[in-house]
Amino acid sequence: MADEVVVLSAWPSMIGMRVKIALAEKGVKYEYKEEDLANKSPLLLKMNPVHKKIPVLIHNGKPVCESLIIVQYIDEVWKEKNPLLPSDPYERAQARFWADYVDKKIYDAGRKVWSTKGEEQEVAKKEFIDCLKVLEGALGDKPYFGGEKFGFVDVSLIPFYSWFYAYETSGNFSIEAECPKFVAWANRCMERESVSKSLPDPHRVYDFVSRQKKKLGIE
Amino acid sequence: MADEVVVLSAWPSMIGMRVKIALAEKGVKYEYKEEDLANKSPLLLKMNPVHKKIPVLIHNGKPVCESLIIVQYIDEVWKEKNPLLPSDPYERAQARFWADYVDKKIYDAGRKVWSTKGEEQEVAKKEFIDCLKVLEGALGDKPYFGGEKFGFVDVSLIPFYSWFYAYETSGNFSIEAECPKFVAWANRCMERESVSKSLPDPHRVYDFVSRQKKKLGIE
Repeated sequence: MADEVVVLSAWPSMIGMRVKIALAEKGVKYEYKEEDLANKSPLLLKMNPVHKKIPVLIHNGKPVCESLIIVQYIDEVWKEKNPLLPSDPYERAQARFWADYVDKKIYDAGRKVWSTKGEEQEVAKKEFIDCLKVLEGALGDKPYFGGEKFGFVDVSLIPFYSWFYAYETSGNFSIEAECPKFVAWANRCMERESVSKSLPDPHRVYDFVSRQKKKLGIE
Repeated sequence: MADEVVVLSAWPSMIGMRVKIALAEKGVKYEYKEEDLANKSPLLLKMNPVHKKIPVLIHNGKPVCESLIIVQYIDEVWKEKNPLLPSDPYERAQARFWADYVDKKIYDAGRKVWSTKGEEQEVAKKEFIDCLKVLEGALGDKPYFGGEKFGFVDVSLIPFYSWFYAYETSGNFSIEAECPKFVAWANRCMERESVSKSLPDPHRVYDFVSRQKKKLGIE
């Protein structure tokens, strides 16, 4: 029996993009269902009753929730093709550490950049750049976070790149000027079809962010 | 060469207790170094320069940070004895989901119980009990979260039990009256030497919490 794989997500969601990239890396076909987060589907509420959040992966009827847990699940189930986590326990721990860093720091730091103004925004821009510089330090001179091969940290982090245009335009700054190695890494990732086909057009994200700002009364 | 294992932690830390329990389950001997969080050691700052937080596991000179990542690392390195994560990918994802739930909900919910007063505390108590009831639902009628055997979710959650006396005394309520199955599970875990020897005396935690309250001007 072929695997039945369904993804519940919303197109601007960076953590949803992680799931798409991981499945594309493994060559797994899936049905994608776009969620309206203002009006969540009965399927989403049934499949993630605890958090009621996207993304959810439904594999042969059984749900897996939380994006980094989903990516690890995908890596463990379809383990032959393009392993995402390294096999060495220490390297695995390092990969998990940096993916966790992305979760704990980058989303909130990025959100502050586009959802604030004036002095508060200046602080937010500095914090965001500081976080990227920490990541640049972890990347070092390697092509990918895991070394020679695209892996778990890359999958976790690259979706945020689709929001960079919105951050930069909102904050009137250039991330590339501050973090050139980071942007070179991002462009390297974008050459992979698994990534380029899973990330939305940055202008579409910008329009989405502009609408969010209007809703929040920021503009 | 024997493994050189060092743990940096602080005795009241629930997430530090996780590391002690996991090492005890594996029968790994280690050197414990108590950290003064008001005056962090140069070793801690060197081993966890990103977050500067405990716990840190130092294995043959190399640091692993973030408690759930440390527990997974321990499980992967010393894999023969008492496996903590199940081998099935779906069950592993479920275990990671509930450990993540503990991280996202229980610490903050518990902190609110002891650090608030009056109406705010009543709300906090209800939230805390609601979280425990969700966990009781996940436990079901199994002896442990992973089923018949003590595992990853149990390691992640049981340290909080050492704070229950402080929560209950601060909030003037009985957790057992609200969540009897949860407390029965906790007592089952406490029968394991790996747990009972890794958790501090609840009265010592209570004294610690009392001092924290005074510092914060709550009492």
